[in-house]
Amino acid sequence: MASHIHPLDPATAEEIQCATNLVKSAYNGIELHFKAAGLEEPPKAAMVNYLEAEHKNEALPVIPRCIFLIWYIKRTPRLFEAIVDITNNQFVHHAEMPRDFHGPVDRAEMNEAAQVVMADPRVQEEIKRLKIDDTTVVLDPWDYGVDGEETQTRHTQVFMYMRNPKNNDPDSNHYCFPLDFMVIVDLSAMKVKKIIRLPLGSDQTTTPAGSPVPHRRTDPIEPEYDHRLQKNPPRTTLKPYQVVQPEGASFTVTGHLIEWEKWRFRVGFNWREGLTLHDLSFDGKSAFYRLSLSEMFVPYGDPRNPIYRKGAFDLGNVGAGVTANNLQLGCDCLGMIKYIDGCVVASDGSPALRPNAICIHEIDNGIQWKHTNHRTGKATVVRKRQLVLQTIITVANYEYIFMWYLDQSGEITFETRATGILSTQPIDKDAKVPWGTRVADGVMAPYHQHIFNIRIDPAVGGYANSFASTDSVAMPWDDVLNPLGTGYITQETVLDRAGPVEDDVGKGRVFKILNENVQNPVSLTPIGYKLVPIRSQLLLAHPGSFHSRRSEFCSAPIWVTKHKDRQLFPAGDYTNQSLGGTGIKSWLDETPGKRDNVRNEDIVIWHTFGFTHNPRTEDFPVMPAEIAQVHLKPYNFALFNPTNDVPGSNQIDNKSVLYQAPSEQETEAAGECCRSNL
Amino acid sequence: MASHIHPLDPATAEEIQCATNLVKSAYNGIELHFKAAGLEEPPKAAMVNYLEAEHKNEALPVIPRCIFLIWYIKRTPRLFEAIVDITNNQFVHHAEMPRDFHGPVDRAEMNEAAQVVMADPRVQEEIKRLKIDDTTVVLDPWDYGVDGEETQTRHTQVFMYMRNPKNNDPDSNHYCFPLDFMVIVDLSAMKVKKIIRLPLGSDQTTTPAGSPVPHRRTDPIEPEYDHRLQKNPPRTTLKPYQVVQPEGASFTVTGHLIEWEKWRFRVGFNWREGLTLHDLSFDGKSAFYRLSLSEMFVPYGDPRNPIYRKGAFDLGNVGAGVTANNLQLGCDCLGMIKYIDGCVVASDGSPALRPNAICIHEIDNGIQWKHTNHRTGKATVVRKRQLVLQTIITVANYEYIFMWYLDQSGEITFETRATGILSTQPIDKDAKVPWGTRVADGVMAPYHQHIFNIRIDPAVGGYANSFASTDSVAMPWDDVLNPLGTGYITQETVLDRAGPVEDDVGKGRVFKILNENVQNPVSLTPIGYKLVPIRSQLLLAHPGSFHSRRSEFCSAPIWVTKHKDRQLFPAGDYTNQSLGGTGIKSWLDETPGKRDNVRNEDIVIWHTFGFTHNPRTEDFPVMPAEIAQVHLKPYNFALFNPTNDVPGSNQIDNKSVLYQAPSEQETEAAGECCRSNL
Repeated sequence: MASHIHPLDPATAEEIQCATNLVKSAYNGIELHFKAAGLEEPPKAAMVNYLEAEHKNEALPVIPRCIFLIWYIKRTPRLFEAIVDITNNQFVHHAEMPRDFHGPVDRAEMNEAAQVVMADPRVQEEIKRLKIDDTTVVLDPWDYGVDGEETQTRHTQVFMYMRNPKNNDPDSNHYCFPLDFMVIVDLSAMKVKKIIRLPLGSDQTTTPAGSPVPHRRTDPIEPEYDHRLQKNPPRTTLKPYQVVQPEGASFTVTGHLIEWEKWRFRVGFNWREGLTLHDLSFDGKSAFYRLSLSEMFVPYGDPRNPIYRKGAFDLGNVGAGVTANNLQLGCDCLGMIKYIDGCVVASDGSPALRPNAICIHEIDNGIQWKHTNHRTGKATVVRKRQLVLQTIITVANYEYIFMWYLDQSGEITFETRATGILSTQPIDKDAKVPWGTRVADGVMAPYHQHIFNIRIDPAVGGYANSFASTDSVAMPWDDVLNPLGTGYITQETVLDRAGPVEDDVGKGRVFKILNENVQNPVSLTPIGYKLVPIRSQLLLAHPGSFHSRRSEFCSAPIWVTKHKDRQLFPAGDYTNQSLGGTGIKSWLDETPGKRDNVRNEDIVIWHTFGFTHNPRTEDFPVMPAEIAQVHLKPYNFALFNPTNDVPGSNQIDNKSVLYQAPSEQETEAAGECCRSNL
Repeated sequence: MASHIHPLDPATAEEIQCATNLVKSAYNGIELHFKAAGLEEPPKAAMVNYLEAEHKNEALPVIPRCIFLIWYIKRTPRLFEAIVDITNNQFVHHAEMPRDFHGPVDRAEMNEAAQVVMADPRVQEEIKRLKIDDTTVVLDPWDYGVDGEETQTRHTQVFMYMRNPKNNDPDSNHYCFPLDFMVIVDLSAMKVKKIIRLPLGSDQTTTPAGSPVPHRRTDPIEPEYDHRLQKNPPRTTLKPYQVVQPEGASFTVTGHLIEWEKWRFRVGFNWREGLTLHDLSFDGKSAFYRLSLSEMFVPYGDPRNPIYRKGAFDLGNVGAGVTANNLQLGCDCLGMIKYIDGCVVASDGSPALRPNAICIHEIDNGIQWKHTNHRTGKATVVRKRQLVLQTIITVANYEYIFMWYLDQSGEITFETRATGILSTQPIDKDAKVPWGTRVADGVMAPYHQHIFNIRIDPAVGGYANSFASTDSVAMPWDDVLNPLGTGYITQETVLDRAGPVEDDVGKGRVFKILNENVQNPVSLTPIGYKLVPIRSQLLLAHPGSFHSRRSEFCSAPIWVTKHKDRQLFPAGDYTNQSLGGTGIKSWLDETPGKRDNVRNEDIVIWHTFGFTHNPRTEDFPVMPAEIAQVHLKPYNFALFNPTNDVPGSNQIDNKSVLYQAPSEQETEAAGECCRSNL
């Protein structure tokens, strides 16, 4: 392979082709269905070795390029995985998986299942029953979930909709027109297995045989999100807003290496996690080895058969790289944009490009700091510039926007925006259910949760780190030591053993990643980074339920483990129809006292957070993004404010303009800036 | 007064002059010291009457303009307040306040106190002791706090610093050079009362008599935030970033009426709260009567005498209007800006303009919604435009940036950014204290909290509203009704009586303002707005401490009261040196069952949130803004997504540009936008 490739660079098209060729050649012409392929990152020990040499500009060790792959023998339940060393053209690992492990779904297979459904005479009969000849049926094949039955069979569940009869347009929002039955397909046999009528009321009642789905009223709502199909033209009140960077961007991109405002790091990409960040240093000091969204789970709250198994692991079951949008200039960000392509694998083993899977650009996020000296009237203002790395995925109905923000202050923010379209079900006229919201006539959007986990592999001033919970607690009221009862102090607990970590908002709990080997000479305390978590409800499904057993990371807001190679996915490597038992809990000894020592070790922090999304009418026909942010902030990591040397905000560079109402006669402010008279 | 003034428009300079003239004329030449003056808003009943007529374009009732004032008889402890009807030139209310009530501090008085301190021979002797002839002493007079002694005397506590001896510049950051004593001044007598040596270690030990303050090392930190005084020039890596609005802003400002993207509301301003919002409607439907930051409290955690009484109510003690910065074009925001002036009162009774106290502009906040139909590849993206109303206050060392964001989706966000400079104290070489962080050589920044309260006076579809707490709870595991143990539902509790409301993150508690008289015809539930609170630690000081008694709102995250005119300030009207007992708790009957009915009534919601700010080295010499946001989101308020008709994001309007690395040969993407191939 080309020698200029960095060991952390994503797999190229050529590399993926090379790996699937090797796999195919081992199967003597047996037809394979490839499910996934991407870089197998080097073991951390080798990688750290490499990075240390790289940082010192020393001779670089050679690390072979490896590709991880998953495939089926086509039309069989036989599932395999391998790690292929493409530098030396050999298998490093090659194994058939147990029969109750299932590979991720893919679009090709889903499309085939949809065709099989539509060709099935029983399905055609159901459609005929509904008397909807004036429009087209639309299918939404979903990952199946688990009910504990037939766990060795790979299924898809296909939700049935129709286009808006008023337009019968291919881009009609069919989620406003759910049909009253669904279809289950056996994916190995590629055959319809079952047709199920959906319950329409607040119990298990299904549609009485032969009753047609009414053509629902679309008034008073607008069912279409596509402006072309809406009743009224878009508003005309919004004026253009442009970001202009006359001297270009402040970042530089060299291959996958990004340098920007004291930050230096690498961008990664793979089929499963999509965007990843590697080897991050700030102001010349190591901060993080690897940052990634590790998994997400979307369990639904409707308890009724057959909806009750609905629960998707969008990374493990599908892949954030596989579903990465092709981001478009002028649509998904403003200003000067760098796009990075990704590459995944097609089912036939050929490389499948994901063009513009990641975009990189700067934003202005208001004021970073300001102070006015009231004695002199001198104000100094510094603006908050941030570097944004964004990827957007489409998983059937939903969209997720994932962003990593790097800030001049050394702060890193992971943001998720949940948008797209609610997965809907039919509901009787005027019926109400306590587990869903009516969002249109006869249309119910069930309650559900979006539970994310981000994986933080820190390297705060080096690879040996500790994890501390720091509470702010009142001092005892004491005549000598705390005479007014106003004193408070911090109490820090450093975690000794791997395991879950509890939150406590009431104690103002702060979570810190510390390097106990490096003291900040100003504070005289260890250097660190603070994790500012998203405080949210955890999994609602009962402990012991399949939802719960499968999503092991969802039972605690924070987990700390000792780093182990290939422990990347806290719900397990194979999440599709998984039965549980292979996630983060399974990595821990059942006896807490026997668990790995995590103090001053190479540790990994896992933060679980989410939205309990009980839909509003405002979330339909398309959902204004629900936004949540996790922050990592330097905590006595730097000697002083790292943004102290950001130049002052000024009108010469910023060229702002005064608003003038038609009736007003304001004159443009004179040149001098940032001198206020309080 | 001019007839074009709206009853909610802030007091003009002319009106304030008119009011102080009337007050002065009542005192026959006795010299007065004016502390505050501003609009006394009309009683709500009258105002609602007026607004209903206004909204219907009917004849408007006449409401007299009233000004509220606070003053002292100069150099006495005699404190008065009045409401003056300037339309009819008469007192509506005029009263002398009890002797343990104290008016807010003001800059004129603080400056006078500073002069008195510097002229005092004992102070001069202390300074001489320190051998700091090569630099200038700088004084930071603070509101005094309370220790329970001499509660009828008005005090200031003056923290003593010096300029950086290396530059002795008026804009030097003196907070890096704290002296080892402080001075207490009696403000009525305007005399130095006490000089106190500060404790320098982790107990009450003070500096041994005669020991000089060392000239502290400034290495390895940069002590100056003013770029002109820094050792090194500012970084040159940051390229300009401009916001261009070629067709102008999307908002219109008519007097104090703002219209923007389905929003219509009025901007208010007064000496105490600064920026306020009034009579907000969205898409023609009433949403809120009044929104304001009602109070903030900054208690410090250092338990030692004399620091232990440090605790500032920055609104009640000083005023967010009084301290509003003069915002400058190109510094405090980007794009097209509308500035609004405010007016307060000078101590002599003349009006004191606060030019550019509020700025209004639009921002682009990324993506509002996106969906890609994977069947056709058609992507639709809508960007998230927001209207921002910003005001920035400087209270001695600290800055607060307060922003109200209005979103196209009907969402309102209140954001606070805490920035500026830490209030510091001296500390012994190498000493550590458990209630503070060393931020420079010999400089300690004590732990403290910033606890804010916002007042939400709703009018969701009308003035009779209810307040509900909605939990998401698992359904019992049941073979028939919840066979897989995955079902969950919401449980809603509507509040009957006024009082505090508890939070519960674990239950995914959602707080809603409901109008139980108006049903959403789509969801078949009451229309509402959701309050998304900031979940934070509450007051750490002990119940019964002065900090606690004075800050009544700080003991619960949410309070609901029945609306009463002039109940605006949840720590009481007079917070300076207050003893407590006049805030939100005092408005409630001690017996919860006897409290006001708040279901389907005119209610007010008060949300308390804050930062427990245990400083980091990164917070010095100036602090990167700490950001927190409260959201109000429509919840089944609209029939469907209010941003559905926002035009799609497109390159023609947005004019983004491709990044090109020097080595790359990328070509600009062709015109077509928003059509992705997944």
